[in-house]
Amino acid sequence: MRIREITPGEFSLVWPIFQAVVAGGDVFAYPPETTFDDARRIWTSPPTRAFVAERDGAVVGSYMLRPNQPGLGDHVANAGYVVAPEARNRGIARALCEHSLKTAAEAGFVAMQFNLVVATNESAVHLWTSCGFATVGRVPGAFRHARLGPVDVLIMYRRLVPAAG
Amino acid sequence: MRIREITPGEFSLVWPIFQAVVAGGDVFAYPPETTFDDARRIWTSPPTRAFVAERDGAVVGSYMLRPNQPGLGDHVANAGYVVAPEARNRGIARALCEHSLKTAAEAGFVAMQFNLVVATNESAVHLWTSCGFATVGRVPGAFRHARLGPVDVLIMYRRLVPAAG
Repeated sequence: MRIREITPGEFSLVWPIFQAVVAGGDVFAYPPETTFDDARRIWTSPPTRAFVAERDGAVVGSYMLRPNQPGLGDHVANAGYVVAPEARNRGIARALCEHSLKTAAEAGFVAMQFNLVVATNESAVHLWTSCGFATVGRVPGAFRHARLGPVDVLIMYRRLVPAAG
Repeated sequence: MRIREITPGEFSLVWPIFQAVVAGGDVFAYPPETTFDDARRIWTSPPTRAFVAERDGAVVGSYMLRPNQPGLGDHVANAGYVVAPEARNRGIARALCEHSLKTAAEAGFVAMQFNLVVATNESAVHLWTSCGFATVGRVPGAFRHARLGPVDVLIMYRRLVPAAG
């Protein structure tokens, strides 16, 4: 598997996977009816950067990386990940996460924050925890899950560089 | 004091106050060099709505109200508040907050979430707590305070309507 950065013009490589993920209504706040143009803007508009994982010439996953806040909060990164349904449970999300942590550190970010981890998405919570993230917040009922109704949202965080001593 | 909704074209009423607040580098992530156009977009671009508090014909404060997330998270509101430096400690922030809670509930939001309450801003934390907000998260060092350096950010939350059941 190879992970490489893409340009906004290459977003069509990500689009089928993005669509499949939002269609589930169980991971992202982006609604199932999100258009190609909106998705491309979310995933690739600077300062957001996008990357794809390729295996045997096919794109099997993608992540986007961006500052979580403007200005005085832009030292903390945020990222989002999608994996093709047919490629799940093969370590792709973990590889994307590890790549994003390295890319974020190289770009000068000192930490990474996820704002909307769906609390019922146990495999994601387990994966991010195993990648070094801690749950630093929990917002009651902040996500309308397609099957479960309102469920809690977790805020997860990890440092990318050692604290200054 | 009267609080009323404004159009994007009226943002110039808010601009001096917005500028004064971001100049401090101690409340908002928006950097001190934020331009008029960027500030107007942040404060007034739909679906964001903006309101001003007027006293004796002068604008003394403002708030913006918007969905905190797109799509499946858009039942939770987010808001931001600014008060003119010369009008502080007169209950204006509280009046703006109470007005925003009422407006948000009328607009159909079921809760309100603040993503970036600077933990060292004790008067704000105290005010939001007294307005019914609970601290549901804390992100270490996520705000670069102009005088104090990296300080923690609180996530605060309150419901706007009683829980079903």
